[in-house]
Amino acid sequence: MIIRMKDFATKDEIQKVVNYLKSKNLEIKDVSSDKVTIFGVIGDTTQVDYHGLYAFSGVGQVTRVMTPFKKASRAFHEADTVIEFPNGLKIGGDNFVVMAGPCSVENEEQLRIIAHEVKASGSNFLRGGAYKPRTSPYSYQGMGVEGLKLLRKVADEENMLVVSEMMSADALDEFEAYVDLIQIGARNMQNYDLLKALGKSTKPILLKRGLSATIEEWLMAAEYIMAYGNERVILCERGIRTFETYTRNTLDISSVLSVKELSHLPVIVDPSHAAGKWQMIDKLSLASLAVGADGIIVEVHHDPEHAMSDGAQSLKPKKFDEMMDHIRTAAPVFGKKIV
Amino acid sequence: MIIRMKDFATKDEIQKVVNYLKSKNLEIKDVSSDKVTIFGVIGDTTQVDYHGLYAFSGVGQVTRVMTPFKKASRAFHEADTVIEFPNGLKIGGDNFVVMAGPCSVENEEQLRIIAHEVKASGSNFLRGGAYKPRTSPYSYQGMGVEGLKLLRKVADEENMLVVSEMMSADALDEFEAYVDLIQIGARNMQNYDLLKALGKSTKPILLKRGLSATIEEWLMAAEYIMAYGNERVILCERGIRTFETYTRNTLDISSVLSVKELSHLPVIVDPSHAAGKWQMIDKLSLASLAVGADGIIVEVHHDPEHAMSDGAQSLKPKKFDEMMDHIRTAAPVFGKKIV
Amino acid sequence: MIIRMKDFATKDEIQKVVNYLKSKNLEIKDVSSDKVTIFGVIGDTTQVDYHGLYAFSGVGQVTRVMTPFKKASRAFHEADTVIEFPNGLKIGGDNFVVMAGPCSVENEEQLRIIAHEVKASGSNFLRGGAYKPRTSPYSYQGMGVEGLKLLRKVADEENMLVVSEMMSADALDEFEAYVDLIQIGARNMQNYDLLKALGKSTKPILLKRGLSATIEEWLMAAEYIMAYGNERVILCERGIRTFETYTRNTLDISSVLSVKELSHLPVIVDPSHAAGKWQMIDKLSLASLAVGADGIIVEVHHDPEHAMSDGAQSLKPKKFDEMMDHIRTAAPVFGKKIV
Amino acid sequence: MIIRMKDFATKDEIQKVVNYLKSKNLEIKDVSSDKVTIFGVIGDTTQVDYHGLYAFSGVGQVTRVMTPFKKASRAFHEADTVIEFPNGLKIGGDNFVVMAGPCSVENEEQLRIIAHEVKASGSNFLRGGAYKPRTSPYSYQGMGVEGLKLLRKVADEENMLVVSEMMSADALDEFEAYVDLIQIGARNMQNYDLLKALGKSTKPILLKRGLSATIEEWLMAAEYIMAYGNERVILCERGIRTFETYTRNTLDISSVLSVKELSHLPVIVDPSHAAGKWQMIDKLSLASLAVGADGIIVEVHHDPEHAMSDGAQSLKPKKFDEMMDHIRTAAPVFGKKIV
Repeated sequence: MIIRMKDFATKDEIQKVVNYLKSKNLEIKDVSSDKVTIFGVIGDTTQVDYHGLYAFSGVGQVTRVMTPFKKASRAFHEADTVIEFPNGLKIGGDNFVVMAGPCSVENEEQLRIIAHEVKASGSNFLRGGAYKPRTSPYSYQGMGVEGLKLLRKVADEENMLVVSEMMSADALDEFEAYVDLIQIGARNMQNYDLLKALGKSTKPILLKRGLSATIEEWLMAAEYIMAYGNERVILCERGIRTFETYTRNTLDISSVLSVKELSHLPVIVDPSHAAGKWQMIDKLSLASLAVGADGIIVEVHHDPEHAMSDGAQSLKPKKFDEMMDHIRTAAPVFGKKIV
Repeated sequence: MIIRMKDFATKDEIQKVVNYLKSKNLEIKDVSSDKVTIFGVIGDTTQVDYHGLYAFSGVGQVTRVMTPFKKASRAFHEADTVIEFPNGLKIGGDNFVVMAGPCSVENEEQLRIIAHEVKASGSNFLRGGAYKPRTSPYSYQGMGVEGLKLLRKVADEENMLVVSEMMSADALDEFEAYVDLIQIGARNMQNYDLLKALGKSTKPILLKRGLSATIEEWLMAAEYIMAYGNERVILCERGIRTFETYTRNTLDISSVLSVKELSHLPVIVDPSHAAGKWQMIDKLSLASLAVGADGIIVEVHHDPEHAMSDGAQSLKPKKFDEMMDHIRTAAPVFGKKIV
Repeated sequence: MIIRMKDFATKDEIQKVVNYLKSKNLEIKDVSSDKVTIFGVIGDTTQVDYHGLYAFSGVGQVTRVMTPFKKASRAFHEADTVIEFPNGLKIGGDNFVVMAGPCSVENEEQLRIIAHEVKASGSNFLRGGAYKPRTSPYSYQGMGVEGLKLLRKVADEENMLVVSEMMSADALDEFEAYVDLIQIGARNMQNYDLLKALGKSTKPILLKRGLSATIEEWLMAAEYIMAYGNERVILCERGIRTFETYTRNTLDISSVLSVKELSHLPVIVDPSHAAGKWQMIDKLSLASLAVGADGIIVEVHHDPEHAMSDGAQSLKPKKFDEMMDHIRTAAPVFGKKIV
Repeated sequence: MIIRMKDFATKDEIQKVVNYLKSKNLEIKDVSSDKVTIFGVIGDTTQVDYHGLYAFSGVGQVTRVMTPFKKASRAFHEADTVIEFPNGLKIGGDNFVVMAGPCSVENEEQLRIIAHEVKASGSNFLRGGAYKPRTSPYSYQGMGVEGLKLLRKVADEENMLVVSEMMSADALDEFEAYVDLIQIGARNMQNYDLLKALGKSTKPILLKRGLSATIEEWLMAAEYIMAYGNERVILCERGIRTFETYTRNTLDISSVLSVKELSHLPVIVDPSHAAGKWQMIDKLSLASLAVGADGIIVEVHHDPEHAMSDGAQSLKPKKFDEMMDHIRTAAPVFGKKIV
């Protein structure tokens, strides 16, 4: 930690800060010039709230030099983490996973049609929402646990794995029973009670980036889950909120590279929510492959005009199949294989 | 709802959209020119997912003309809502409420010192966090229910009301027992399971705006609580996330005016979290008063250098007292009285 | 400047950075711990492109500790700058200036009607656009120099000063001849050739904040004008671009406080462009007064429905007069007097 | 254009709007329901300032249904525009152009070394800044016209084309003389006087997207150049400003798709300025290829540690050569050929 005092800070103000830090068993190294007082703080600075130091009068700028995450950090675990599922499917490394399925589970027939199609095109991971985070209380809220049961049933028929979003810690037992990968949505990325509960889960977690979460906050959310006991976290970039409204969100494709630099965790991309337009999914998936993402999660619906949610961003099975062809052709160029 | 078809939309594509809408018992009015096909859709359009209409090929632009919130809307309830507490204190109308206290409840002595000071300066509402949403799992997480009990005890001694943040629906009984106003934090604004639970609360809710929530999303979050049964919602602007980092967030002072135009609900301002700097609290509070906010919620700590959280944005009691003097002088000019 | 090397930086990489800095006659102070290599750099660091240091492999984080602006800095000039015009009117200190007039100068009659009204209500500064920065090439582009002449003529009749926007350095002579305060619009805040030209102007400059300019970039734009010879700069907050679209821009009211802390220059607020809605101007002007701004610039039109630009955000003279009454009542509370 | 009146709009208010629109020879079609008054406006609505309609009291919401750009619109020119240079090199269609070179032209030797290297790796377009838009007035401002002459000289030796940034209309003759493609930087995207001047240029224009420009504003800036006479515009996405600071800007990769949908103009990507980190250039270039961009412009420097600007985001020639290999391998997969 580096502290620069304000230009007009008094000796007394400086001494108060120094004394406080020394009382925390931290070492102080002076880096002052004749114009400005600056010192480095060495030791276990995680016990000090760096933002809180501004409470001391005379403090001008506090700069952290250590990343605040530990278990999620590349410094803690240098090699890429690869997460293996009971059926042997792996996420991370040179694998490129394609998760596909409807936004909402609507009924058994719908789910079976879609699952069968996406499996045939090469996806081994079935996505589907049973609990839906809807902006309006008057919108369809999902089938609940019945939806999870359908996902399990249909996925087993098709020999697929299941990923679905959990919105409340109360539902953990259901998710443990029916789901292979528990998704945490963007709106719950900083729902800390939920993150803590996931620390006790036996399942890997798919952690979506919050709408306006920085890379650091996203990794800190992963750190919560890891610190509470579950180190199998997969990150998912799904677009951030910016001033641009032509697309639903702005896909931050560089975030894949940022995460790969800072962390050892796998990271996939959700182009459906990022763009909000099915026309863009194919090319954004290829871009995700090109930057080195570990996979994608996309919405597919056989009848998007009548889907109960997110029809606009759902691919029809035929378009999904074409996209899979494109990915299959391009993957070897980028050193990846579809799983 | 207004639908503009794309320039190259075929007759068949147009007919499919029209048929779909008619199947929902909606009336279609043609507004097309010779260059472009446009039609208005009349009737109960809330049953149609407007964004989902983009799933129909040929649809160029869908524009909602009705606001998606009902109970929160000024159209539903023209007069300003005033919320009254059991002790007679009112929020809304010409009242200007000042909620004050520490970021975190740390211990009984700390809380008593601060409560006594802010009461003496004119605040009748004690704020304090017992459950803390911290970015890092390694930071202080709060006293939990013991903190709520202390808040109740000290507030009763000082004849004050209590506001505190609830992070999980599981804690609702505790909050019903010890708290007068339940605060929902920015990070949980779209935690829909939590919002639904609050619909059953007997207490008013203080709903903070999410870091990147639009005015509409914020009002829709209020709508959730109201639709599930609790119409006593107070909104709280606490700064939004923008590109500017000199302040912790960017206080969107105009949002008070936007909310007042669209909704009948009271709205207060949290300058502490917006600015993140105690030096700015006084003047931002006066600005809140000037635009017609129904009050403020500010952090006060007698020893901010050693506060367990948010010291940088906490006022010392003496500064708080000076600010209250300024507010007391200015309030009559803006037709408000401090409560 | 503080440099933290990456965790895996080699001795050779570290030495290269150190040698480079020493070659610039800078002093290096080591602040390393056993976990990480950090050093402070002391001396005239303005000659080093701090971002460019990332070009050295092994460099993890470079933090500036000195502000990059000099002449605009409060450290350079501790007291508030007050700018005086030939007629004795002053901006800065305890003065609150109200600049008012139409968005565009349309013709002599329009300008005379509006000027007479705003003067009668207490404004001594006439605003009006002769050169208009329009998003569309098909929109009205302004009267050009004829508009400047009309501004001068009408302002002289009413004994007012003139402020108008300059878009090209080529027009400097015209502005020197007819205008008292040269406005630089948000879109040209980083038009450096224009800023350099203004350094040679004999007139004070009103520098609007760019749509997405940080406080630092805004002050650096002021620094350009000052470094090139003209130190009489007045800043103008006019709203920034955020994700919120209910208002045209988001008024960053805290920026007034940030500027006052970092700089000695006067700062005024443009609530018309910030909100884009005339209904909000009155209250946002009062908020500007409350935070300590040095004035406002607002759009007034006697017939906004038929204005050639920005009618939606123009006050009618009667509303402007009411607002002036509100400001006149509130100003003494905030230690300001209208000029 | 669709106009929704406010819920409490009076008959008189409605009539005033209708009369105004009819006075402009526009046709009104009523789409009102029993709850709300809405009407469509048909005819040449470009003569009406849609935002200005909010000046009429009672107007609730005005929605444009026609795009405001004409010449830049895909509706105006359905096929992709391909721009050909005198030497036969084409941008657009299935061509993928790679522009490369230093951020700033520093001297002849530097330029010759870099030009020779990038040409050898397969680039046929030399970039280099002679006039530099620097945030600080104390930073290196570029060689000026001497830099342009060097670019021409060295490019001719290597049989390359030249692209360089123009900051002022005054320099147009110089650019006409020495440059093949005139670049307009992000900060000048809405410098309308400059855009108008470019309308008279005989050279194609490379128009960078502004830091916080929407897709529509960007296309409107292109429209300016086209409306003033020069239809040969190439767009360049270079990252937008968001809350995320880990990368210098946020590369909006989807914008390539948005532009391709709305417009017929070619669009290339500048990954150097978007990321600000040389480590990310390779993969972001591949992502640009994957989404269908028409090329890239990247910074290359043989000695980035001592570059006069932007060293952190400059590739060394060896890295650039590796990247060209990657692009050469991947291009056929995406139906593109390097030019």
